[in-house]
Amino acid sequence: MSNTILKNIPSLPNIPWEDRPAGKQNSPLWRYSGNPIIPRDLTRDSNSIFNSAVVPFEEGFAGVFRCDDTSRRMNIHAGKSTDGINWIIDDDPIDFIKTAPELPDSEYKYDPRVVFIEDRYYIIWCNGYFGPCIGLGYTFDFKKFYQMENALMPYNRNGVLFPRKIHGNYALLSRPSDSGHTPFGDIVYSESPDMIYWGKHRHVMQPAGTESAWQSKKIGAGPAPIETTEGWLLFYHGVLNSCNGFVYSFGAALLDLDKPWQVIARSRPYLISPQEIYECAGDVPNVTFPCAVLTDGDTGRLAVYYGCADTVTGLALGKVDEVVDFIRKNSL
Amino acid sequence: MSNTILKNIPSLPNIPWEDRPAGKQNSPLWRYSGNPIIPRDLTRDSNSIFNSAVVPFEEGFAGVFRCDDTSRRMNIHAGKSTDGINWIIDDDPIDFIKTAPELPDSEYKYDPRVVFIEDRYYIIWCNGYFGPCIGLGYTFDFKKFYQMENALMPYNRNGVLFPRKIHGNYALLSRPSDSGHTPFGDIVYSESPDMIYWGKHRHVMQPAGTESAWQSKKIGAGPAPIETTEGWLLFYHGVLNSCNGFVYSFGAALLDLDKPWQVIARSRPYLISPQEIYECAGDVPNVTFPCAVLTDGDTGRLAVYYGCADTVTGLALGKVDEVVDFIRKNSL
Amino acid sequence: MSNTILKNIPSLPNIPWEDRPAGKQNSPLWRYSGNPIIPRDLTRDSNSIFNSAVVPFEEGFAGVFRCDDTSRRMNIHAGKSTDGINWIIDDDPIDFIKTAPELPDSEYKYDPRVVFIEDRYYIIWCNGYFGPCIGLGYTFDFKKFYQMENALMPYNRNGVLFPRKIHGNYALLSRPSDSGHTPFGDIVYSESPDMIYWGKHRHVMQPAGTESAWQSKKIGAGPAPIETTEGWLLFYHGVLNSCNGFVYSFGAALLDLDKPWQVIARSRPYLISPQEIYECAGDVPNVTFPCAVLTDGDTGRLAVYYGCADTVTGLALGKVDEVVDFIRKNSL
Amino acid sequence: MSNTILKNIPSLPNIPWEDRPAGKQNSPLWRYSGNPIIPRDLTRDSNSIFNSAVVPFEEGFAGVFRCDDTSRRMNIHAGKSTDGINWIIDDDPIDFIKTAPELPDSEYKYDPRVVFIEDRYYIIWCNGYFGPCIGLGYTFDFKKFYQMENALMPYNRNGVLFPRKIHGNYALLSRPSDSGHTPFGDIVYSESPDMIYWGKHRHVMQPAGTESAWQSKKIGAGPAPIETTEGWLLFYHGVLNSCNGFVYSFGAALLDLDKPWQVIARSRPYLISPQEIYECAGDVPNVTFPCAVLTDGDTGRLAVYYGCADTVTGLALGKVDEVVDFIRKNSL
Amino acid sequence: MSNTILKNIPSLPNIPWEDRPAGKQNSPLWRYSGNPIIPRDLTRDSNSIFNSAVVPFEEGFAGVFRCDDTSRRMNIHAGKSTDGINWIIDDDPIDFIKTAPELPDSEYKYDPRVVFIEDRYYIIWCNGYFGPCIGLGYTFDFKKFYQMENALMPYNRNGVLFPRKIHGNYALLSRPSDSGHTPFGDIVYSESPDMIYWGKHRHVMQPAGTESAWQSKKIGAGPAPIETTEGWLLFYHGVLNSCNGFVYSFGAALLDLDKPWQVIARSRPYLISPQEIYECAGDVPNVTFPCAVLTDGDTGRLAVYYGCADTVTGLALGKVDEVVDFIRKNSL
Amino acid sequence: MSNTILKNIPSLPNIPWEDRPAGKQNSPLWRYSGNPIIPRDLTRDSNSIFNSAVVPFEEGFAGVFRCDDTSRRMNIHAGKSTDGINWIIDDDPIDFIKTAPELPDSEYKYDPRVVFIEDRYYIIWCNGYFGPCIGLGYTFDFKKFYQMENALMPYNRNGVLFPRKIHGNYALLSRPSDSGHTPFGDIVYSESPDMIYWGKHRHVMQPAGTESAWQSKKIGAGPAPIETTEGWLLFYHGVLNSCNGFVYSFGAALLDLDKPWQVIARSRPYLISPQEIYECAGDVPNVTFPCAVLTDGDTGRLAVYYGCADTVTGLALGKVDEVVDFIRKNSL
Repeated sequence: MSNTILKNIPSLPNIPWEDRPAGKQNSPLWRYSGNPIIPRDLTRDSNSIFNSAVVPFEEGFAGVFRCDDTSRRMNIHAGKSTDGINWIIDDDPIDFIKTAPELPDSEYKYDPRVVFIEDRYYIIWCNGYFGPCIGLGYTFDFKKFYQMENALMPYNRNGVLFPRKIHGNYALLSRPSDSGHTPFGDIVYSESPDMIYWGKHRHVMQPAGTESAWQSKKIGAGPAPIETTEGWLLFYHGVLNSCNGFVYSFGAALLDLDKPWQVIARSRPYLISPQEIYECAGDVPNVTFPCAVLTDGDTGRLAVYYGCADTVTGLALGKVDEVVDFIRKNSL
Repeated sequence: MSNTILKNIPSLPNIPWEDRPAGKQNSPLWRYSGNPIIPRDLTRDSNSIFNSAVVPFEEGFAGVFRCDDTSRRMNIHAGKSTDGINWIIDDDPIDFIKTAPELPDSEYKYDPRVVFIEDRYYIIWCNGYFGPCIGLGYTFDFKKFYQMENALMPYNRNGVLFPRKIHGNYALLSRPSDSGHTPFGDIVYSESPDMIYWGKHRHVMQPAGTESAWQSKKIGAGPAPIETTEGWLLFYHGVLNSCNGFVYSFGAALLDLDKPWQVIARSRPYLISPQEIYECAGDVPNVTFPCAVLTDGDTGRLAVYYGCADTVTGLALGKVDEVVDFIRKNSL
Repeated sequence: MSNTILKNIPSLPNIPWEDRPAGKQNSPLWRYSGNPIIPRDLTRDSNSIFNSAVVPFEEGFAGVFRCDDTSRRMNIHAGKSTDGINWIIDDDPIDFIKTAPELPDSEYKYDPRVVFIEDRYYIIWCNGYFGPCIGLGYTFDFKKFYQMENALMPYNRNGVLFPRKIHGNYALLSRPSDSGHTPFGDIVYSESPDMIYWGKHRHVMQPAGTESAWQSKKIGAGPAPIETTEGWLLFYHGVLNSCNGFVYSFGAALLDLDKPWQVIARSRPYLISPQEIYECAGDVPNVTFPCAVLTDGDTGRLAVYYGCADTVTGLALGKVDEVVDFIRKNSL
Repeated sequence: MSNTILKNIPSLPNIPWEDRPAGKQNSPLWRYSGNPIIPRDLTRDSNSIFNSAVVPFEEGFAGVFRCDDTSRRMNIHAGKSTDGINWIIDDDPIDFIKTAPELPDSEYKYDPRVVFIEDRYYIIWCNGYFGPCIGLGYTFDFKKFYQMENALMPYNRNGVLFPRKIHGNYALLSRPSDSGHTPFGDIVYSESPDMIYWGKHRHVMQPAGTESAWQSKKIGAGPAPIETTEGWLLFYHGVLNSCNGFVYSFGAALLDLDKPWQVIARSRPYLISPQEIYECAGDVPNVTFPCAVLTDGDTGRLAVYYGCADTVTGLALGKVDEVVDFIRKNSL
Repeated sequence: MSNTILKNIPSLPNIPWEDRPAGKQNSPLWRYSGNPIIPRDLTRDSNSIFNSAVVPFEEGFAGVFRCDDTSRRMNIHAGKSTDGINWIIDDDPIDFIKTAPELPDSEYKYDPRVVFIEDRYYIIWCNGYFGPCIGLGYTFDFKKFYQMENALMPYNRNGVLFPRKIHGNYALLSRPSDSGHTPFGDIVYSESPDMIYWGKHRHVMQPAGTESAWQSKKIGAGPAPIETTEGWLLFYHGVLNSCNGFVYSFGAALLDLDKPWQVIARSRPYLISPQEIYECAGDVPNVTFPCAVLTDGDTGRLAVYYGCADTVTGLALGKVDEVVDFIRKNSL
Repeated sequence: MSNTILKNIPSLPNIPWEDRPAGKQNSPLWRYSGNPIIPRDLTRDSNSIFNSAVVPFEEGFAGVFRCDDTSRRMNIHAGKSTDGINWIIDDDPIDFIKTAPELPDSEYKYDPRVVFIEDRYYIIWCNGYFGPCIGLGYTFDFKKFYQMENALMPYNRNGVLFPRKIHGNYALLSRPSDSGHTPFGDIVYSESPDMIYWGKHRHVMQPAGTESAWQSKKIGAGPAPIETTEGWLLFYHGVLNSCNGFVYSFGAALLDLDKPWQVIARSRPYLISPQEIYECAGDVPNVTFPCAVLTDGDTGRLAVYYGCADTVTGLALGKVDEVVDFIRKNSL
């Protein structure tokens, strides 16, 4: 067993936790027994609450949640929790304050990620502007939210910021897309001195072949990368195109700390794939889609929040050294 | 609350009924607790019984039911019930008597609707004649059934008659289609002086955009429109094209009494979407598809029969004034 | 050689004519040596003038022409000619007078046919009304044009009227379509007592197989059927789906005089296929598409007007008895 | 009731068995009450274990199993069982010994069938060699396995050998395919003198139309044909293309004993279609896919092993005479 | 006639020129009589030379040319001309010097544009880097060429720089794409302080509907915008999806000088569409694709270089005031 | 220059010939000045005559020709010529005598190749048997033709025999296909001891990437391989998928004499691509498709017969040593 240690990550003693259940263990992650932790109809108008971005905040936790309403409009809502399991989510979507009057409007918002950098919580989401692109905003308090320039052009999805600057720049992963449901998908790295202008794009990973078919159709970054002594730990989803529909699983990769577009290791097996009924049946069958991970700097515990069947939210647990070991031993 | 009143609709004290359950209420419809009320294998050869057209008849109820047999042949069968919940459905399909010898044969029949107009029960269905088109017939007694000329050309589906003449003509809604599974779908209004020749086609509604995505791919009329003091109340299905398959939900619209191609209000949220396991899993995952509604002229009670996963039949209940209010308050 | 005679067709001594050139003769039609007779840029704004409906009128000829302008807007224009070869076409599209105020507007018009019935010239075209459908109008003088109700619902194309009533009804052929470029296509027959309401739809012909591959993808009626002692002579186009695009050729069929949905004979070989450079190259490569035919009741001469590469107009000549013989001898 | 008798089939008193449950009986097959008998995670790395080829072996049973691992790599594993219900499957895939050094490598293996001919057990599977083709091997003892030349070219799937030579040749059914998920599929018969060179290909069956829609998109042979006094009994799967995905059911056919490309009878209804939750939900929704059948020569009992939702393995039971009678009475 | 004057554009007395020919004039552009001016096989290995970026240089002209070689590899070559008509193009592709060692390699290069800004000639092209993206480089002398960071992420095409900074930033138009041939296409505006990091993306134009069908499928910027007293004059191509393939025409738009994402006028008719045989037939039928325009600040003369059938290069001529008037009078 | 010498190839002093014209020479092949040598309408009913298999025969030449008739039925006809340029082709298709009564019928025939092996001329063609497969027959005299078993299963095209046995077996190249127009295509090698049973399939070549885009979509063998001192010289076609249709060019490869599935060299540039108007416009635009080559053992002269636009037949000339050198110097 390696001795992978989380870097620059504070202790989080109240991280949601449950020990690994007994039995067959071919993944370093296991499901929380109370899954799904967030039901589809928690808010006033929600049809589904699934891709959920959660961070430690004050004494407990805060988050930004994709809530599709019963008109199947996609939007993101703020929420709070004392234990990371039981959530109170605002009935109304976040009402962003534009940081500049000429900022373009947002036709819809979905799949948020939240990352704390320096002094504030950045929110990144898929933003509707003549197609999907990378929306960007921030909050200090999960009460007032500010919207910035879109990070990149349409068509793009699955944008996630790194939790600190690299080479003096903000750093971003994204998944260039098309205007529809996108039958392809690679992960690309970009930098920005100011979160307005982005460049120095570098290709990171593309889908795998039959040797890792769960990620053979398209891939996309999940939660913000986690800094470890071994590299950036990135959970990411992958899609298999079966003879009767898609399957969304997720795995993890280690990226070089200084050149994050260089892949050190990448899990050939998935970590979680749709197997429980709440993952297999719902608005979008066969989806497990991670958008956030809590980490405890002391123990290396990880709590991964993932969308289930695009309907409800599940929680998976694990430890950073076991995950890193697993990736290294089972690397593509 | 408005005071919407049903027009020209007799009392139906034995309408299937169950009061709204306690709890979150963001739709004016709720599911019957005994769903699904018709199992897939009720008749001798049935693989599935789902899109079901039910009317009051004599002391109880009669209906015409889509029964796919275990050869997956699509046909329509007559059935009876004393309570609208427990049904006896004929093992054999309806054997229509042609009203004229030169009437073309039917390659298959599915998705029936039944409407009483003046002196008889008209049956409308999707009729196979070099592709799907609108079949038309009638019965007086649910014993003998007569087949008429097809109402429109191929390719068409989801035909429903209005329960009375408009401008002295029979009036029909339909959904022009293609020869396959049809990736588009609008609702169109037509008139006929004699149920043989049809014309004066007027466009009624097309799919919505992201502001009501459950109906963004295609839409189609459900049960026969219900006359109310506020307009024609039309339940209709809508389809969302998710990243992994279709979802069939249903909502409702109010159409102008005199010019039914003019839409007064149209529900932005769905009323029912696939959420129960018998709606999410089955021969066609994620389908809730209404084909009939019983109405009680006295109380305004509504009982909507809808196909579940193209496998079994479910029942949803509500009140006309609450439905109309909901549409008006949540209109596209 | 049979003795097929045109029925109910007046003499037309000034029909455009040129004798069959010497050489190989495996079609009863031959091209006019001055093809294309109408260039793409004849009118002020025209990008192309191709699918053209021509009839004898007064001392010469009149017609309605598809003229796409340089915005690639599709519309129909009136035109006149003394010899049927040299045309003067109006720079502006026909401005139809609605026969009823509530008639829906037309988003675009294309592919006209003109048929004289009883006392007037009917114009039928593909009319944009939430998709392609069959537009209908008439004129007495090619100056004032009146628009009627659309003949059928969307989606439909290639509507042509028979030149006289059948069973006391107006009779129409059309080609049910989808909302796009339509990868299928059969010909269907319909009747109407009043040109407003249409019914009694009967299937006429569907695409052929490999034994007549030029018409294996889709087919559609061309000019109005010509009454002969042997049946209705119908020129129609057929489409082959090659390994690199479509090819539009045309052939002819004989339909029963009383039951026109019954096919007496149907040409296995094409009569004309794209072989000249003005038929092979242009806005739409490899198209020969007939929309009108002049007939001389005395001599049986035929002059077929056909669109070439959706860009210019060509003329093909032949004799009715030779065409009918050819169909009979080479029938599918 | 006929008196169909199994030919050349030894007694198998320990065949897994359970009598038909009471109730509606419109198929001669019924499900084993302990389904699914093989869970998805039985082996060390398995994501799913489903298309399973089982034969009597020594005192019990042996088999070859498709096990996709958690990298979603497809491979085949050997297994053993004393009762045919409870299985021990090797954690590692079969390591074939090449019968000639120049034999091409296998990129992946899936969907095995096992057939005993003369002196050994032949294994046939879908073998990755620049696309899917028919892999071929044999074993005497389920310990050492030998790989032979691929039986046919890419692209092919669903190869099954007949259990004895026909016309002095080995005989094979297969399903020519394309390089992807293949939207078509017929069954073809081939012969070989030596299992190296194959020829005399004869077309056996193609998909049905709307009269048997469960097999209207594509079909493929299942377990090895069973010799009976009435002909070869072939279980085969069929696919329906619903408006929201595919459904894989299975039926059976009788083929001529001497000319197996001649179909004597073919079940219009399916025998088993996806109806249980473990058949409807899983990695591939709505799949029941037979790959093996045990037969008891004494009693005519049949035990069909079939993949469920491409995730787990189910068992269906029946009797040969009832199955044959059913096919004959309900033949296409 | 307006008095549109070119801004910031030097005189170019030796601009290639030929007066407008007599005859019908429904476009302000006309073709050069010696078209095509560059044949397909001008260089040693060229299969085709078509999308060509030309600027005044020293006493004559220089340019960068898309030359596909006979391996159908796409690359860009430098060339020179004294008269803008007769060109000498290097047999070998441009060998770019990387401005930083870590710059990613280019898999292919095509469709260059050249723009002089401040002190150098910038070259922009479609650059292969895990899909098409916007390559960027510069030269001072058309001998040494320097490659910079890619301007934007994949997948993007048709990037063109404005000839001066706007709001103190470099300004760029591009056309977000997918990884294939891209069935959609809008024009988007972006800014950069340093040509490395890009942001402030603003949507400019999307395809039109049936009222301007030549540009109804996708659009993309052509040559660098030309500054005039009326706004930025932008030539751009548009694509029509006919029933048998695409047609690439081009038109022009006026963009606001200060907010170039605001469209002042946009030509409803095309200016040039494929009509000559060298535009209709070739490696890609029916393509006219502009990539460069020369302008004479004194006379307002314009010389547009455009690719013909993706095979050869053509030249079209016109005057700025006539073009601007035409756009204004015929604006969408 | 190498000294490649033809092996086992007799002298053919009357091979059609014309010296290389002066001018740019970036291919070792040049077109015959009298192209196309066979017009589309040479026979009584022909629509097109293009993919043509020619061999020396008696004092002159004989051949088998794909002639599509004006019903667009595909069939093969025999023909003779004294000079290889001017041909007399039978008006009627070849009437094959079945070598065994149970041989399946042929739905259509196209794209023949002819190869002399040992004592007879073998004809191989694409044969319609529930889809395209490899038909096989022979003749001694081009008068009587005998049909054998189909060589392989459907779906397959572009079968060509080697002119002598390899490893004691007949040897065949083919291109596995699907049931339609096949968007993929590799070349595969097979052997047979008796021309009835085929096996030992080995993959030879697959499409190339952007470095040789003319062959990036699919490839297929052309004429029978030519034995040389350097290996088997194989002309083969390749397809590029442009943004507006396919382009069929051809190149050549050298295969190992003993293991023909091992590629020694393969031309990165094409040898001939569609550039002449008779290659760019016709029934299938942009096709040059070789099916036969004459070779003179004395001089090394080659005369390649290739279909042009699937409409007429062209001739290209060259010398074996120049072709081999070209492949070696410009190999992928």
